[in-house]
Amino acid sequence: MQAYLDNNATTMIDPKVLELMQPYLTEKYGNPSSLHKFGTETHPAISEAIDKLYAGIGAKDEDDVIVTSCSTESNNWVLKGVYFDEILGKGKNHIITTEVEHPAVRSTCAFLESLGVEVTYLPVNEDIRVTASQVREAITDKTALVSVMWANNETGVIFPIEEIGEVCKERGVLFHTDAVQAIGKIPVDVIKAKVDFLSFSAHKFHGPKGIGGLYIRKGVKLTPLFHGGEHMGGRRSGTLNVPYIVGMGEAMALAQKGLIYEDTEVRRLRDKLEDAILQNEEILVVGKKELKVPNTILTSVRGIEGEAMLWDLNKAGIAASTGSACASEDLEANPVMAAIGADKELAHTAIRFSLSRFNTEAEIDYVIEVFNKSIKRLREISSTY
Amino acid sequence: MQAYLDNNATTMIDPKVLELMQPYLTEKYGNPSSLHKFGTETHPAISEAIDKLYAGIGAKDEDDVIVTSCSTESNNWVLKGVYFDEILGKGKNHIITTEVEHPAVRSTCAFLESLGVEVTYLPVNEDIRVTASQVREAITDKTALVSVMWANNETGVIFPIEEIGEVCKERGVLFHTDAVQAIGKIPVDVIKAKVDFLSFSAHKFHGPKGIGGLYIRKGVKLTPLFHGGEHMGGRRSGTLNVPYIVGMGEAMALAQKGLIYEDTEVRRLRDKLEDAILQNEEILVVGKKELKVPNTILTSVRGIEGEAMLWDLNKAGIAASTGSACASEDLEANPVMAAIGADKELAHTAIRFSLSRFNTEAEIDYVIEVFNKSIKRLREISSTY
Ligand SMILES: Cc1ncc(COP(=O)(O)O)c(C=O)c1O
Ligand SMILES: Cc1ncc(COP(=O)(O)O)c(C=O)c1O
Repeated sequence: MQAYLDNNATTMIDPKVLELMQPYLTEKYGNPSSLHKFGTETHPAISEAIDKLYAGIGAKDEDDVIVTSCSTESNNWVLKGVYFDEILGKGKNHIITTEVEHPAVRSTCAFLESLGVEVTYLPVNEDIRVTASQVREAITDKTALVSVMWANNETGVIFPIEEIGEVCKERGVLFHTDAVQAIGKIPVDVIKAKVDFLSFSAHKFHGPKGIGGLYIRKGVKLTPLFHGGEHMGGRRSGTLNVPYIVGMGEAMALAQKGLIYEDTEVRRLRDKLEDAILQNEEILVVGKKELKVPNTILTSVRGIEGEAMLWDLNKAGIAASTGSACASEDLEANPVMAAIGADKELAHTAIRFSLSRFNTEAEIDYVIEVFNKSIKRLREISSTY
Repeated sequence: MQAYLDNNATTMIDPKVLELMQPYLTEKYGNPSSLHKFGTETHPAISEAIDKLYAGIGAKDEDDVIVTSCSTESNNWVLKGVYFDEILGKGKNHIITTEVEHPAVRSTCAFLESLGVEVTYLPVNEDIRVTASQVREAITDKTALVSVMWANNETGVIFPIEEIGEVCKERGVLFHTDAVQAIGKIPVDVIKAKVDFLSFSAHKFHGPKGIGGLYIRKGVKLTPLFHGGEHMGGRRSGTLNVPYIVGMGEAMALAQKGLIYEDTEVRRLRDKLEDAILQNEEILVVGKKELKVPNTILTSVRGIEGEAMLWDLNKAGIAASTGSACASEDLEANPVMAAIGADKELAHTAIRFSLSRFNTEAEIDYVIEVFNKSIKRLREISSTY
């Protein structure tokens, strides 16, 4: 048996998504900017895909939803664009974010710090998230941007985006949210959330890897990250990746349609796994169920190195993670565990399971069985337990 | 009959390329950064693909070849990275490029000008290219970068990159070339050319759209455009687009293998078409055959609007272009025609044919027939002829 429970790292492309993409990988290969039929025959599918993106996040017609190559690009674009527009352009000098953002935000902030920008990294509270009042207190006259993720990739904890959006609006500060881990898991509405910018990556919701998007509220200026041939209304240049755009659109539509299933079936399987995990001794799960997206469990097993557990699971055909995929090759301590003040030993014991609509009950039963056996085995040979 | 002669705008994915990609669009969907088998099973194909990229451009093991989302990204990255490293970092203040670069270079330079950078746009000579001595004369103590394309997308004219590389090396100035239109058409060797940076886009050589690369010579610093999860050795963050990386590698290998065919068969068909075109009266082809890549013809037909001709061709199933694909929706004057000093009327009469290894002799015969008929028809109804 195999069980893929690493959907916060990446997901499989939904076969329905791939089916729609295929013609654009084969005979319909024109460049959409070309005037001849090879170019224009791609237009209906592109428009439909873009419409699905708008619908998926509740954007209005007059807003922009710009296709990028991933949310890393979207996040870099927002932060660096704001650097040029608000900081160099308007004399502001301050960005607010959190200690638990994805590196695509944190490292970009660190780069901006090297250019003299002041960055406040808000710590998380006992709910493993930041509050709107923390944001309110941190805002100054010099604040150019608040960037807070919608849901955390490690814990699945949902941040109070609507309240933070309200605070930013009151104070006239631009607000960005990295919604990579929210799309397809919980409802995402850019209007309700009052965000100016929202990033997403298709491969986290059963679309292809290497394509994403950035929502930009109507009329908000943002210096391009990609200057060039004026594609996407001049916002982001570069030949359009037609197959992946078509795929991302459909993936977004399916993600939206699947929200009820996510909230019921995926949640039920996740809760079943989480409850079974917690039957073990000296084990914890980070974040409260009711504050989390329906698919994620970050657990910490006293006395067991995350990598040792991963290895056991992998041998049994089960894919999980020790935390953020990009960091995991480094065998670093899980950054969220560090942020919540876990001691060094505990920080190395994190294991993340992240489900998707493709997981079955039989898989979850199998994971529970393997996980429990593995805990037993590894604790018997553990030097710290 | 159909004939796609717009391969400088984009190409079809070679079926052999797509075949290699398919497993990574379906069952092999892991994130390469993940430690489990879904992640690691992607590694061999990625390494092979990267090896093919190195081989295709003659890079050494100690150099970097970094996957990007397109050459627009690569070009922006070089220019903006140099801005941070050489201009802000080392007090330089000058970039040299040409009047006929792709907008991905020209618009980025214009953006840097808005930040106070001085940019010299070298004009082209009677061969429709710039010379190494023009570059030598333009270099000052403040010059941070020379950026000159390897082959022009509109005319196909090849620039004297090795000589320019020699001059840059002598003067200790970083040298970037946009080789988008050279790969797969003529041999490209980064060592011979003495370049520090080289950009390419897979969809110009029968790979997928929305993936490209940047060669960076060993040890050359370049501030990332994408900060984040430290993918690609920290040079460019973002989850790897496995299917497209695999595809781009194979496309590069096929492009390299196909160079002889390109130089003989594609050239023969191009020359046949070019000679036939020149049989017409008051018609010119921009650039000398022997200075051009083997696949391109930019022609100008006195008295006929480029768009009118395009329309006739399109009705007959023939895809051509009035110039750079990204600009063509705007119906602007062809920028190269403007740069070579063509009068306004002539600048609107440009038609570009660009062939590939998939074109057949029958197609070329058909294009000649349709083109000649169309000239006759359009000149009869022309107000300016
Ligand atoms: C919250 C969050 N933001 C950004 C990213 C980066 O996504 P990508 O690698 O597709 O750019 C990830 C993926 O790991 C993520 O979980
Ligand atoms: C010379 C040149 N540079 C850059 C580009 C941009 O390529 P992409 O749109 O794939 O980024 C093109 C494509 O039109 C080109 O011809």
